[in-house]
Amino acid sequence: MSWLELPAGTGFGLANLPYGIFTSGPDDRRTGVAVGDRVLDLAAVTGDPVHATGSLNAFMAQGPAAWSRLRRRLVDLLTDESHRSAVEPHLHPAAAVTMHLPVEVADYVDFYSSRHHAENLGRMFRPGTPPLTPNWTHLPIGYHGRAGTVQVSGTPVVRPNGQRKSPDAAPSLGPSRRLDIEAEVGFVVGVPTALGESVALGEFDQHVFGVCLVNDWSARDLQAWEYVPLGPFLGKSFLTSMSPWIVPVEALAAARVAPPARAEPLLPYLDDTEHPWGLDLALEVRLNGELISSPPFAEMYWTPAQQLAHLTVNGASLRTGDLFASGTVSGPARDQRGSLIELSWGGAEPLTLAGGGTRTFLEDGDEVTITATAPAADGSRLSFGAVTGRIAPAGTPVGGLGGS
Amino acid sequence: MSWLELPAGTGFGLANLPYGIFTSGPDDRRTGVAVGDRVLDLAAVTGDPVHATGSLNAFMAQGPAAWSRLRRRLVDLLTDESHRSAVEPHLHPAAAVTMHLPVEVADYVDFYSSRHHAENLGRMFRPGTPPLTPNWTHLPIGYHGRAGTVQVSGTPVVRPNGQRKSPDAAPSLGPSRRLDIEAEVGFVVGVPTALGESVALGEFDQHVFGVCLVNDWSARDLQAWEYVPLGPFLGKSFLTSMSPWIVPVEALAAARVAPPARAEPLLPYLDDTEHPWGLDLALEVRLNGELISSPPFAEMYWTPAQQLAHLTVNGASLRTGDLFASGTVSGPARDQRGSLIELSWGGAEPLTLAGGGTRTFLEDGDEVTITATAPAADGSRLSFGAVTGRIAPAGTPVGGLGGS
Repeated sequence: MSWLELPAGTGFGLANLPYGIFTSGPDDRRTGVAVGDRVLDLAAVTGDPVHATGSLNAFMAQGPAAWSRLRRRLVDLLTDESHRSAVEPHLHPAAAVTMHLPVEVADYVDFYSSRHHAENLGRMFRPGTPPLTPNWTHLPIGYHGRAGTVQVSGTPVVRPNGQRKSPDAAPSLGPSRRLDIEAEVGFVVGVPTALGESVALGEFDQHVFGVCLVNDWSARDLQAWEYVPLGPFLGKSFLTSMSPWIVPVEALAAARVAPPARAEPLLPYLDDTEHPWGLDLALEVRLNGELISSPPFAEMYWTPAQQLAHLTVNGASLRTGDLFASGTVSGPARDQRGSLIELSWGGAEPLTLAGGGTRTFLEDGDEVTITATAPAADGSRLSFGAVTGRIAPAGTPVGGLGGS
Repeated sequence: MSWLELPAGTGFGLANLPYGIFTSGPDDRRTGVAVGDRVLDLAAVTGDPVHATGSLNAFMAQGPAAWSRLRRRLVDLLTDESHRSAVEPHLHPAAAVTMHLPVEVADYVDFYSSRHHAENLGRMFRPGTPPLTPNWTHLPIGYHGRAGTVQVSGTPVVRPNGQRKSPDAAPSLGPSRRLDIEAEVGFVVGVPTALGESVALGEFDQHVFGVCLVNDWSARDLQAWEYVPLGPFLGKSFLTSMSPWIVPVEALAAARVAPPARAEPLLPYLDDTEHPWGLDLALEVRLNGELISSPPFAEMYWTPAQQLAHLTVNGASLRTGDLFASGTVSGPARDQRGSLIELSWGGAEPLTLAGGGTRTFLEDGDEVTITATAPAADGSRLSFGAVTGRIAPAGTPVGGLGGS
């Protein structure tokens, strides 16, 4: 029980204690911890310069013993009344601070680990063939994204220009007409590896520091024209948004669940019978405030531990700040789909909005917010905060539209 | 004419002056310039701390005016006899220094811009269909690679483990059996852009600092099983090697040529009629010292200026240290192909080596070296140095081989 009064039902109780980077005035970025409706200034309260670097990277690199030690200390500071006078001056109202990108993103990898999502896209794009490609149940498919355009929640989503191609016309340059979301969960690496090392399933929490929400904005028309044979590129690289709070893996012990039953026996490096890292996160997607989807992360076929084991099985090294995301989280039900292309079935079945109107893909001015909660050790539900973004109109492309 | 005696036929004359990061003893990395068979210590000779940061990034971020200024100063220092006594103590024998990764790589993008290479792969993998995908002549296809595993020339190439799948068997985990090279040319970004900006074709040399050689090592069997639908991942991410010397774009004025004739009219942002950035680089690929290919970079269909314009047309921002590579450089002739999969036609037509034996893909102990030269302003040919790597045996994969 904290001496600090926590709002009823807060998702930021002592069982959570997520880390982020904030400013309260001038641009002196420092590490904060969300507690109730406050942000605790870690640089000030601990005096440790690692929390005044402007990103979580240096602290994340210290490893799990240091992460646990600080977590225990924070609980002590916030429960033992004797610390109150020393701590209280360093609590800022959350509403009064500005949150920044929490990590310097090293490499960004995006997976494709929801079976429902992959099957939905397969049914839409390859009708008459099996919805999953033959490799899908054997390995977690993934690709590298653009780390430099991973930005913090709230960054304006400027509709990207790019080449679009209708079946009966030459390609043209112009604003994407099929701008979409992908509701995802992201995992941030703290402890690096050397080139040639691999991370076994049981070592997941020795390397991964924490968990956040990701919206991997996607221009479906750009992507459809460009992606054969080397995968998504400009259709994704204009922006990826991440939530400002990184929930420590340690806070998620009560959220661990077994993943779905496996369709095929897995190779030993992916056989997670003894190291299940399914996570029971409940996501919610809101369009202009209206709930349009509730994707269940527990349905994900490939767990983050399997993703990390696969990512490194070839000896690829990890760096502090590597971010890997789950891929779109979609459940079996229609209102559990994590992208508009699924929710509107490729635009053929527009969503009817309770607030009026319909939607296939995003319109200028639309705001999308993804939130999530998970069961906490104390029986409460902890919050991941939110990743949000509002669509701004496209700019004029270089060289003009050229026959768009 | 330099007061420094330059070896006859050196590719590192005053018309080149490429930058790299070196150590001559303890690990005090600093910026050097290759001159003849020497390396000039820029940190020492200029006293400028920007050259003692251990990477070229801070200098590259200063922009083209600063790049030109230093280049002029270097020519002055090396030609005016009066500077000799001040400069000479800071010239190290190139053979006595160790070269390091020259840039902190931000994002790494790999293109696919040789028409001959793309057609060769199309003919091998999709017989009976057009060798190029429909998008190929409309845009420079590319994808993001793993920046964290870009390493300097000479880094051992440990054969990667991964999933391989024969048509008639379940996938197995084990060492790649089809380890290959990709002879490429890389371009390093100095001046960043903000999110939402695009770089027009005519602005190429305002952002790109220099040019290097890249070997994008590729495990063809891993890649073949994993790459549908999201592109290459583990088949490439274990290692990408880059040459230690970055040749300034300014040194390549005499190497600029018009690119090949266009198969289709290009959209305005890619129409480079007024800004041709074809480059007449002559590459050579050696396997265990034997010349096996001479890929002509002037044959590349898409120029680096087009690649950069495309990469940013959706508003994706650039960072100092971004590296983008051309994709495998292959010419029309068999002995101009930049990968073993092309040289051995998928393994069906093994290369006969003059030194004895044959080769389809790389064997443990093989060493591959890629070099290149280009015409210089003074009529000589400037050198890009070399990117080299030797294949080391695979390690034991995590979890064992599991039925390999």
